[in-house]
Amino acid sequence: MTSPGSTPDTATRMEHDLLGDREVPADVYYGIQTLRAQENFHITDVPLSHFPRLIEALAQVKRATARANHRLGALDDERAAAIEQACAEIAGGDLTEHFVVDMIQGGAGTSTNMNANEVIANRALEIMGRDKGDYEFLHPNNHVNLAQSTNDVYPTALRLAMMLTFPALAESMDHLITTLREKGEEFDHVLKMGRTQMQDAVPMTVDQEFNAWATTIEEDVQRLTRTATLFQEINLGATAIGTGITTDPRYAQLAARELSELTGVPFVVAADLVEATSDTGAFVTYSGILKRIAVKISKICNDLRLLSSGPRAGLHEINLPSVQPGSSIMPGKVNPVIPEVVNQVAFEVIGNDLTVTFAAEGGQLQLNPFEPVIGFNILESTRIMTRAMNTLADRCISGITLNHSILEDNLRRSIGVITALVPVIGYAAATEVASEALETDRPVADLVLERGLLDEVRLNALLSPASMTAPHRATPTGTVPAVEDPGLDSGEITRLPMEFPADI
Amino acid sequence: MTSPGSTPDTATRMEHDLLGDREVPADVYYGIQTLRAQENFHITDVPLSHFPRLIEALAQVKRATARANHRLGALDDERAAAIEQACAEIAGGDLTEHFVVDMIQGGAGTSTNMNANEVIANRALEIMGRDKGDYEFLHPNNHVNLAQSTNDVYPTALRLAMMLTFPALAESMDHLITTLREKGEEFDHVLKMGRTQMQDAVPMTVDQEFNAWATTIEEDVQRLTRTATLFQEINLGATAIGTGITTDPRYAQLAARELSELTGVPFVVAADLVEATSDTGAFVTYSGILKRIAVKISKICNDLRLLSSGPRAGLHEINLPSVQPGSSIMPGKVNPVIPEVVNQVAFEVIGNDLTVTFAAEGGQLQLNPFEPVIGFNILESTRIMTRAMNTLADRCISGITLNHSILEDNLRRSIGVITALVPVIGYAAATEVASEALETDRPVADLVLERGLLDEVRLNALLSPASMTAPHRATPTGTVPAVEDPGLDSGEITRLPMEFPADI
Amino acid sequence: MTSPGSTPDTATRMEHDLLGDREVPADVYYGIQTLRAQENFHITDVPLSHFPRLIEALAQVKRATARANHRLGALDDERAAAIEQACAEIAGGDLTEHFVVDMIQGGAGTSTNMNANEVIANRALEIMGRDKGDYEFLHPNNHVNLAQSTNDVYPTALRLAMMLTFPALAESMDHLITTLREKGEEFDHVLKMGRTQMQDAVPMTVDQEFNAWATTIEEDVQRLTRTATLFQEINLGATAIGTGITTDPRYAQLAARELSELTGVPFVVAADLVEATSDTGAFVTYSGILKRIAVKISKICNDLRLLSSGPRAGLHEINLPSVQPGSSIMPGKVNPVIPEVVNQVAFEVIGNDLTVTFAAEGGQLQLNPFEPVIGFNILESTRIMTRAMNTLADRCISGITLNHSILEDNLRRSIGVITALVPVIGYAAATEVASEALETDRPVADLVLERGLLDEVRLNALLSPASMTAPHRATPTGTVPAVEDPGLDSGEITRLPMEFPADI
Amino acid sequence: MTSPGSTPDTATRMEHDLLGDREVPADVYYGIQTLRAQENFHITDVPLSHFPRLIEALAQVKRATARANHRLGALDDERAAAIEQACAEIAGGDLTEHFVVDMIQGGAGTSTNMNANEVIANRALEIMGRDKGDYEFLHPNNHVNLAQSTNDVYPTALRLAMMLTFPALAESMDHLITTLREKGEEFDHVLKMGRTQMQDAVPMTVDQEFNAWATTIEEDVQRLTRTATLFQEINLGATAIGTGITTDPRYAQLAARELSELTGVPFVVAADLVEATSDTGAFVTYSGILKRIAVKISKICNDLRLLSSGPRAGLHEINLPSVQPGSSIMPGKVNPVIPEVVNQVAFEVIGNDLTVTFAAEGGQLQLNPFEPVIGFNILESTRIMTRAMNTLADRCISGITLNHSILEDNLRRSIGVITALVPVIGYAAATEVASEALETDRPVADLVLERGLLDEVRLNALLSPASMTAPHRATPTGTVPAVEDPGLDSGEITRLPMEFPADI
Repeated sequence: MTSPGSTPDTATRMEHDLLGDREVPADVYYGIQTLRAQENFHITDVPLSHFPRLIEALAQVKRATARANHRLGALDDERAAAIEQACAEIAGGDLTEHFVVDMIQGGAGTSTNMNANEVIANRALEIMGRDKGDYEFLHPNNHVNLAQSTNDVYPTALRLAMMLTFPALAESMDHLITTLREKGEEFDHVLKMGRTQMQDAVPMTVDQEFNAWATTIEEDVQRLTRTATLFQEINLGATAIGTGITTDPRYAQLAARELSELTGVPFVVAADLVEATSDTGAFVTYSGILKRIAVKISKICNDLRLLSSGPRAGLHEINLPSVQPGSSIMPGKVNPVIPEVVNQVAFEVIGNDLTVTFAAEGGQLQLNPFEPVIGFNILESTRIMTRAMNTLADRCISGITLNHSILEDNLRRSIGVITALVPVIGYAAATEVASEALETDRPVADLVLERGLLDEVRLNALLSPASMTAPHRATPTGTVPAVEDPGLDSGEITRLPMEFPADI
Repeated sequence: MTSPGSTPDTATRMEHDLLGDREVPADVYYGIQTLRAQENFHITDVPLSHFPRLIEALAQVKRATARANHRLGALDDERAAAIEQACAEIAGGDLTEHFVVDMIQGGAGTSTNMNANEVIANRALEIMGRDKGDYEFLHPNNHVNLAQSTNDVYPTALRLAMMLTFPALAESMDHLITTLREKGEEFDHVLKMGRTQMQDAVPMTVDQEFNAWATTIEEDVQRLTRTATLFQEINLGATAIGTGITTDPRYAQLAARELSELTGVPFVVAADLVEATSDTGAFVTYSGILKRIAVKISKICNDLRLLSSGPRAGLHEINLPSVQPGSSIMPGKVNPVIPEVVNQVAFEVIGNDLTVTFAAEGGQLQLNPFEPVIGFNILESTRIMTRAMNTLADRCISGITLNHSILEDNLRRSIGVITALVPVIGYAAATEVASEALETDRPVADLVLERGLLDEVRLNALLSPASMTAPHRATPTGTVPAVEDPGLDSGEITRLPMEFPADI
Repeated sequence: MTSPGSTPDTATRMEHDLLGDREVPADVYYGIQTLRAQENFHITDVPLSHFPRLIEALAQVKRATARANHRLGALDDERAAAIEQACAEIAGGDLTEHFVVDMIQGGAGTSTNMNANEVIANRALEIMGRDKGDYEFLHPNNHVNLAQSTNDVYPTALRLAMMLTFPALAESMDHLITTLREKGEEFDHVLKMGRTQMQDAVPMTVDQEFNAWATTIEEDVQRLTRTATLFQEINLGATAIGTGITTDPRYAQLAARELSELTGVPFVVAADLVEATSDTGAFVTYSGILKRIAVKISKICNDLRLLSSGPRAGLHEINLPSVQPGSSIMPGKVNPVIPEVVNQVAFEVIGNDLTVTFAAEGGQLQLNPFEPVIGFNILESTRIMTRAMNTLADRCISGITLNHSILEDNLRRSIGVITALVPVIGYAAATEVASEALETDRPVADLVLERGLLDEVRLNALLSPASMTAPHRATPTGTVPAVEDPGLDSGEITRLPMEFPADI
Repeated sequence: MTSPGSTPDTATRMEHDLLGDREVPADVYYGIQTLRAQENFHITDVPLSHFPRLIEALAQVKRATARANHRLGALDDERAAAIEQACAEIAGGDLTEHFVVDMIQGGAGTSTNMNANEVIANRALEIMGRDKGDYEFLHPNNHVNLAQSTNDVYPTALRLAMMLTFPALAESMDHLITTLREKGEEFDHVLKMGRTQMQDAVPMTVDQEFNAWATTIEEDVQRLTRTATLFQEINLGATAIGTGITTDPRYAQLAARELSELTGVPFVVAADLVEATSDTGAFVTYSGILKRIAVKISKICNDLRLLSSGPRAGLHEINLPSVQPGSSIMPGKVNPVIPEVVNQVAFEVIGNDLTVTFAAEGGQLQLNPFEPVIGFNILESTRIMTRAMNTLADRCISGITLNHSILEDNLRRSIGVITALVPVIGYAAATEVASEALETDRPVADLVLERGLLDEVRLNALLSPASMTAPHRATPTGTVPAVEDPGLDSGEITRLPMEFPADI
């Protein structure tokens, strides 16, 4: 097959639609309606083929409907077989470059649907031994689009595309989590200063920090996966507005069943097909989860850039691996380019979410015509987030090293460790020591000893990692015996019934 | 007790903190730190007392920690009892007006926490028979704030405040759903034109439209409720950065248990307290759900305004109840003021969500200092959305009436009904009839009869509500017998295992 | 006059509108339509009176129209005088608390307009010696609202409110700029490390940093002021949709003239009143400028929090003044609460801008009914930004001090100074020195001397503040003589005509 | 030259950088650093070459700096000539496909800068008769990047790219305006109902509506152009952080001058180069203007879709041209695909603006490392907006036709015309007529005549287009003589000095 971009000669075939006749290059698999759509929507220079999974999804939906129509006797054996084979080829990656319509398009996805109908029809015609364009034998609308409307096919294909792409994102998140936890293990028990509001607070361990990053992403893998199940509810069979006009009463269930068999995704037909046809809520929610992940990963990258700042006039607790030369003007400079690119991916995803929000709000009555821009933005967000996660894990996190002397020095000079002594020496004495430490730049421990507030044994015990980085009962007279039974194990909690006030 | 706004005389009491002495009005329950915070944060003119549920939540958290401290032997009987009573009074609505700090404040909520500590301490002192300000007997920090940090108390109180306010929102959504479904029932079987892309599409019933609105909100009640459970995971006991420094190892579980008993909310202590202390993911997700609801309710209001447009030069299918005079300059004009106010609430909620997103992204290292603006925005969104839902149900939906003659006339004159005939008369003939109908403004049915394409009995059957508004098998030779067994009940679906490509 | 909140007794007066009769408390100045609006729009608990400048603006617009109507002979002397006096009183701050309608309201501002019409009418009736409610002598609609529509009065009042509030914002920005420049002067010639991408870069002076902050805000004072002039174009006289129906042809010009005289703002009537009536572009642009300022001030606060991080495990270059005690659990901790509150104000303003964007996009045909939420958000943004600027200047910037030893130490130990030597010792040698400095933690200067790359005199010259913090020509053989005439003063630039490609 | 995508054979050349050696395909013009960047930033699949104007801009900046360096004697004749020629070729469109780095990248644009440095160096080497990769003769850093830093070159190139692309946008807006005004002229004096809040209001002419759309866009052409001038202020010569380290004191002015000569854009060097190097305010403002345009064009498209709704159950005042077949399932359906695609472009631009906002806010200290995502989003917004404007003008507006009978019928049946009679028959009588008209569906004019409120001559005069669509003085006793002198021409306005209250 020839590339659609090349024009080997001026050979064309004539095609016809409601608006008249047009010559179509002889070697392309798309037809007249795709051609018109290309001309009408010259917007982004990003064609459908930019997202192969969307094309795979379209092919699978068309294959499932062909099967359902065949079972119902509405499509004969020959045509059904040809359409099935064409769809299988396209789902496998063939002919992707013939999906040429702009990702941003009017018509609620009609041009995407027609691009698919035409490519499938022409490939099926070839399989049947016919020429491309001989639509009297197999027609893009009458046969490939049989019992379908853009309004049910396109949302269904978008949902399948989401189901095909989210696992890669989930996997990249898992990979990042594993990488973070492995680093945590590597840095286990290494003490450092924790900070709140950018100010020295109290000690913690480095693995607590890495594990906190892992935990925050971990929560979202589950959430992403659960949210993706929203896409399993489809409106295939709804046709134009959800009333299923022109379809056999058994068609919707059959088509969903075939699609489930083909893809392994357990699709179900929406209970309220009218609602399902105009609703974009699942996209808004999913995009919102992508945004939530973006916010978290951006925060992590902000932390990484902050902790690796320096090497002299910064925190410089950690070193990020050097993946490319830094500045051409400043010798030896290494920049945190991987966190920076991930930050930008996060910003892009957040912006995309707003576009999705606007598009969702703009839908009217029985359809939302703005699904193309919704699909475009979510597919882009999913792709760049997936790659960003993998990039962050493999080109940054996995190569992080610690500057132990800085971590220790920070801790030794820190005033924040005084907090661990408060229960023993009291807030007033602690405040005095803190002030002196700040003024004189002398270690807190030295001052406490010097003032005879504690002996060295006790002091060291209180300033041990175990005491400072986990709950620990300490009192002026030593660690007191535990209250016999503070009631922790006294059985079921008797909760008051919640009462809610009349107004909020 | 005297109102904090009034200054009956110039009586003051002297209070002291790290920065020095200040005179505090004798009759107010808050103290010197609240006073400083008021001066430092003169921003919105919206004080904490604007959100009584937040104050209730603060009081409950303080009450729970006092109980836990008492059980652990860290707080004596008298003080524990006094603090408990003070908290109970405040949770019940007393002293709300003494919570005077601005909702937008620096310090990660420290000023809110101190406002609570001071009001509780002073009220507890009164209960103990002491004067306000006699902190040597009961101290805002040493006793009310015992074993606590703003960094665990404040997020926990915010989460409880969410748990206290979301049920009213869920209830208002349920109320709206019920009202919509009742209207749907009232308008059952009334036919109308469905529209896609603002163009006449195919017929549907009015109840299908109202029920679709109900369904779309219904999905979100469940989602809201499920998302709210994220707030049940708290970091109480984390103290400064999640390591639980200064707390008894049993304190966190005890405090959570007491809080659950007091509020009826099944709180659990987060497994990773370091993560939980800096994480704002639950707020981002919850705000995202509020945004999703906002987008949906805005779409419904857009539809209502569109469907009630007119009365002459609009769709005018429905009449919204008149709740106030319309224009002063245009006699008889009635405006859709209720959908309009709900649209604006939706826009406000969407904007608030962005503020939450920015604040969440801006957190650094072991704490997010921007939780005050997050709390402010979500509390406002929840409140205005709740009221908007109730307003929409009671002042708009419940009073909607139909203009039956317009609905019928639209349908009679519509070309879209031709779609129902396509399976019988074919696409080509249908297109010809459609063209003539559009040009001549004559009903499709007349033209079909005139051309002898169908007899009247068959035509009426195909254009019956039942045929047009639900799946219906129709072919050129009449409704064909069902394919014996299209395979719908042939047992379990054998789904292919999902295969995911290497890249997306 | 009695407070509207109090209900001294059950005295009421009866009022009437299109929807029927209602009892209105006898002592309030608003009337039946305000009462209905209060009930219809129970949303935010933020009444019109929250923004006194908006009420002042409404009163001035009403006063101007009364004057214009009087001049045209449409309003008699007695009524005109009474309305004028009532408006003057209200503009001066009286009766503000009688503006009770919710800031978020449906009806495109009709309820705000009617609240003004009713309060003005009732106060004017008192001035005329009549009772409140005796509308047969002076009517809210027929006289106060004469020749007006909400659709021209409300946008005009909003625009005036913007003109009344932006100067305080501009002034607060000027104050911040002055404060920053004064600090810059105080810190003149103090060297520090500049940073790019959070990594040590090359030296600069502290005043360069403070002045850069001042400059970036300075650009926006001008921009804000220029953008505010967009509000001088008003649509007063447009009435319902911009066609000026029911108005005298001279009315629009007269009313604008009167408003200009009353307020000192040079208002002009829009050339295309139809466009002006539905357009909200000026609000979008103004809100966009507020967002730009928010982004900049947030960046400055991020910098301040970063530069003051520490005191041990942070950059700790500067000290922010301590304005309130920090942590209750961590003795001696001081937090950057002022930058934090300003950050949050910025986030709020950015969110508000999105609400404005949504509301602006949602307008349809000849009117945008969502101006109330636009006005609410911009007024809030302006207020909180103004206060935030002043707070930042007075409670933070003005008290900043430097930690000179840290600045010096950073510089001394920094590798970045090597950049200043590159033109002399070459990139290759510089890279070697940089590597050794990084590994050994020894100062660059020492290594350069040790390797005999430069003598001390030359080295010191190159590392002098003057050489490092401004352009400076240096070559291997010393500072070369300037190229005689590099062409800098060779007269006019002959610019090529710009050529633009066909596509972008 | 060979396409970079093809791999004719396995020929490679060896290149070296700080991180080691790498084989680079022999036929590509980029080098090792570009290769690393490609691997590090595998994110969007959108390479730099997606935006040819950005590459043109990079080439022009490099050409200008080469000229300045040559003048200052820092670059010899041969190298300067070779670099100049290479840059000229690239600016002309050659070698675009060798700009392969991802648009979203870390490193603040360093990889884009190095991609340019390497392609220019290798092409210049060829011009000098050398082999690609023989950097000892001409080096990407030492010669092409001489006296430059990414931190001044990249922002300058981005700014130039904005200057190269905005004129096409401005032109497309002018084209849309002209098309709208031509349509307005075509529809001059055709009466229609104006609407406020989706409800029938008062009459207007169709040209007033089209001209209002034109006016609203027109305001923004000027605004866009003025905002673009912000990009004329550049920081070329700032090098790393704005202090101009390593540059000749005359270099910045020279380079700006050369760039102005080459491009025809009057560039000026920023007065505060430190500020200019970290500031992204111009991008935020420009993006904000793009957003404002997006909001307006979206509103226009919403109106177009609304006014063309139907053909039976909609407003159907106008017909949009049919540019492609509508539904495959619904014969004869035509959809407003062009406004729909433009709406989506608007949503995309609004989302992009948020990404820009986040990226701008995230900058720290002396640099904003997130300019790549800023540039990406603004370039995309500019492109798609330009194309959307042209598409809207040529494929939609220019082909709009009116449905005169509907316009007339709406007007004849409308109740809103009663407003024009209010000044003559009074509000009370008008309201009664309005009520009867609404109930009986009879024309207002008939009812007025029937009730004897006006004679036919007077009525027709009042309901004439001239009276209803422009200001018109009418009173009960006929049009009264104008007030002799209402003061409109009484000279200068004496404006009160503006007084601003202490607080807002």
